[in-house]
Amino acid sequence: MNYQDFFAASLDQLRDDGNYRVFAELERQCGDFPHAQAHDGGDTTPVTIWCSNDYLGMGQHPAVLEAMHDALDRCGAGAGGTRNISGTTHDHVQLEAELADLHGKEDALLFTSGYVSNWAALGTLAGKIPGCVVLSDALNHASMIEGIRHSQAERMIWKHNDLNDLEAKLASLPLNQPKMIAFESVYSMDGDIAPIKEICDLADKYNAMTYLDEVHAVGLYGPRGGGIAEREGLMERITVIEGTLGKAFGVVGGYIAASADLCDFVRSFASGFIFTTALPPAVAAGAAVSIRHLKSSTAEREQHQSRVSEVRARLDSLGIPHTENPSHIIPVMVGDPVKCKYISDLLLQDHGIYIQPINYPTVPKGTERLRITPSPVHSQGDVDRLIGALGSLWSQCELARMPLAAQ
Amino acid sequence: MNYQDFFAASLDQLRDDGNYRVFAELERQCGDFPHAQAHDGGDTTPVTIWCSNDYLGMGQHPAVLEAMHDALDRCGAGAGGTRNISGTTHDHVQLEAELADLHGKEDALLFTSGYVSNWAALGTLAGKIPGCVVLSDALNHASMIEGIRHSQAERMIWKHNDLNDLEAKLASLPLNQPKMIAFESVYSMDGDIAPIKEICDLADKYNAMTYLDEVHAVGLYGPRGGGIAEREGLMERITVIEGTLGKAFGVVGGYIAASADLCDFVRSFASGFIFTTALPPAVAAGAAVSIRHLKSSTAEREQHQSRVSEVRARLDSLGIPHTENPSHIIPVMVGDPVKCKYISDLLLQDHGIYIQPINYPTVPKGTERLRITPSPVHSQGDVDRLIGALGSLWSQCELARMPLAAQ
Ligand SMILES: Cc1ncc(COP(=O)(O)O)c(C=O)c1O
Ligand SMILES: Cc1ncc(COP(=O)(O)O)c(C=O)c1O
Repeated sequence: MNYQDFFAASLDQLRDDGNYRVFAELERQCGDFPHAQAHDGGDTTPVTIWCSNDYLGMGQHPAVLEAMHDALDRCGAGAGGTRNISGTTHDHVQLEAELADLHGKEDALLFTSGYVSNWAALGTLAGKIPGCVVLSDALNHASMIEGIRHSQAERMIWKHNDLNDLEAKLASLPLNQPKMIAFESVYSMDGDIAPIKEICDLADKYNAMTYLDEVHAVGLYGPRGGGIAEREGLMERITVIEGTLGKAFGVVGGYIAASADLCDFVRSFASGFIFTTALPPAVAAGAAVSIRHLKSSTAEREQHQSRVSEVRARLDSLGIPHTENPSHIIPVMVGDPVKCKYISDLLLQDHGIYIQPINYPTVPKGTERLRITPSPVHSQGDVDRLIGALGSLWSQCELARMPLAAQ
Repeated sequence: MNYQDFFAASLDQLRDDGNYRVFAELERQCGDFPHAQAHDGGDTTPVTIWCSNDYLGMGQHPAVLEAMHDALDRCGAGAGGTRNISGTTHDHVQLEAELADLHGKEDALLFTSGYVSNWAALGTLAGKIPGCVVLSDALNHASMIEGIRHSQAERMIWKHNDLNDLEAKLASLPLNQPKMIAFESVYSMDGDIAPIKEICDLADKYNAMTYLDEVHAVGLYGPRGGGIAEREGLMERITVIEGTLGKAFGVVGGYIAASADLCDFVRSFASGFIFTTALPPAVAAGAAVSIRHLKSSTAEREQHQSRVSEVRARLDSLGIPHTENPSHIIPVMVGDPVKCKYISDLLLQDHGIYIQPINYPTVPKGTERLRITPSPVHSQGDVDRLIGALGSLWSQCELARMPLAAQ
């Protein structure tokens, strides 16, 4: 066995399939986001980012930065330990209270990321509740899938957003068997939204817990940014709401919000919570201020939605096809990894527009896309340049096919 | 099934066993660490922290903080995306180069934590290399165990640090079968150190890869802080070196350092790397400066070791038993969770000394301990107060048994 040869061959295979990923190296310009510098070797060129999940630009909000600067000066860089062993700071405790309040829950629990929160919470809940069956939406995020796998609980996958299929699966189980329905509100790659109320009705009928990933909705929907469940008045019907601090809130980290005992249970038993250094106090402080700001300010959410509508309308006027959905995510389907990367490369080189091509394993093969995320910090000029660039590329679409022929 | 009752009963069980964890809520005082304020309800009291993994106090190093302030001003709070989708910044790329250089490897790959780096790298390597068997030290960290489990590869557990047992297990496998030996350098709870050279010899003999967790050694050992493998001139013999940015380097995050193709392989296939928001640029910038500082400055490492020797000698002079080991970790064995928490509570209440009791699942039941981590930022007065407090508690050890009788 030659290990190096194995790695090299696997990477060659990825390249041959067009699935090898090249990361754009950016340098965000605080205060000027979504504008950034792209580094390439020694060179830098200015770009406009159209694919960030810092959906509202909160990552450069002065109040967030001030809180982080202040916490750095107050407490230093890192937490210095796991939550149990010297790593719980006042900033963590305050942030958890802020999150519990955001979702109208008794308590909340922080994790190092949204990924880890899903992995650890689902893994622990489904793994420790005796005989628990997880009913998992077919398009759930990788972190939920890994958490469910980690739990070793029985798993039933129901058709994406399909209530009939979900009910059939629930009905096939004894009423008294522990069950957890795991799903998302806004699905990040297609932008569609789950029928949360109807899922809660089924959960009540069949005595199931509900686990809702609101990662692409917190901060963005609901009167205080509590997500789709808040907007629809459904937060109290959800057993566990999971979210991230790294997208609309602009920092990093993840959490669950739920009953005090449920949070305490996960706190006490989840390996991914227990055995890892806590988030830096400055991260916790910045996230808390971001959440607090978005609880009372609705301007960002309104501007976000109007920017999204505008970009959609302008794409329509050019006949550029994008998948319709009721959220802020605009997927422009390309359907081929090589072509998708080619368009993305042209956008960057010729127009200074950065939209990362989305390929497998993030989306299924054959559904490669450009995923456009307009934000309140994109100016009118930014929108004009985006539409102009896409328009000129689309009308050259013969050209866009050329590199395929050359493969 | 009543879910709430199940959570409540499980927590009651933990309380009955003395294993329920109460986190101390601290507020570190930047510039004055290891001193902090402990919050309790509305009250705060000054404490000295003796159980932090910010081993060298780098979490308050002015150069680290300056780099973080600067990056906040330059780039803002969060990365705004996964590494693939707009989240790779110049600071990440520079930090990865710094880490590769630290360990004399072609490349390095960042993760959101040391936990995730172990879980994702071991899970991906052992899971994707066809027929790979993982030979795992019996005392490996939870994050390695979960990574190996995640890989679904065959696992053989060898007796802790036992070369004969390791060799017997290696010899039982066909020479051509892919194998990975997974182990740590400094074991965090006992402070003992693996025979790295001998393990590498066995790896060569049996054509195995080596995966070394240096989480409790990076920054602390070796001429440039590269860890035990650096100190012993063995870095190039290790296939994968894994480390954290959250302990001696004082910030947060994790990484692997290895060949370029191996890192690229993990980058391309690891779910825990791909599907999560990148670390904030400010975290990356702070960690890079911390590493760079400790590459050239040896003062912190020297003071660390002399502080550790001093505390050991002073404990000896009082007859307070602590487990001998060749590292910086001083475990004072108590062997009972209730007693351990009782001593810890008294230290905090009566002496303003914070040493978290270490209980199950962090250590096996019956080996509960106080784990003391002296640092260069502990003053002579801090040491005197620690020794005075432990001495007076130990001479009252009849009293320390009282709450056990009352259970
Ligand atoms: C639906 C969903 N859940 C969870 C996550 C993970 O969150 P985080 O980036 O904070 O790890 C993501 C994306 O990263 C996501 O898209
Ligand atoms: C041996 C070992 N490996 C890995 C980790 C995880 O590192 P991190 O705290 O950066 O997640 C820890 C402790 O937290 C550890 O003790």
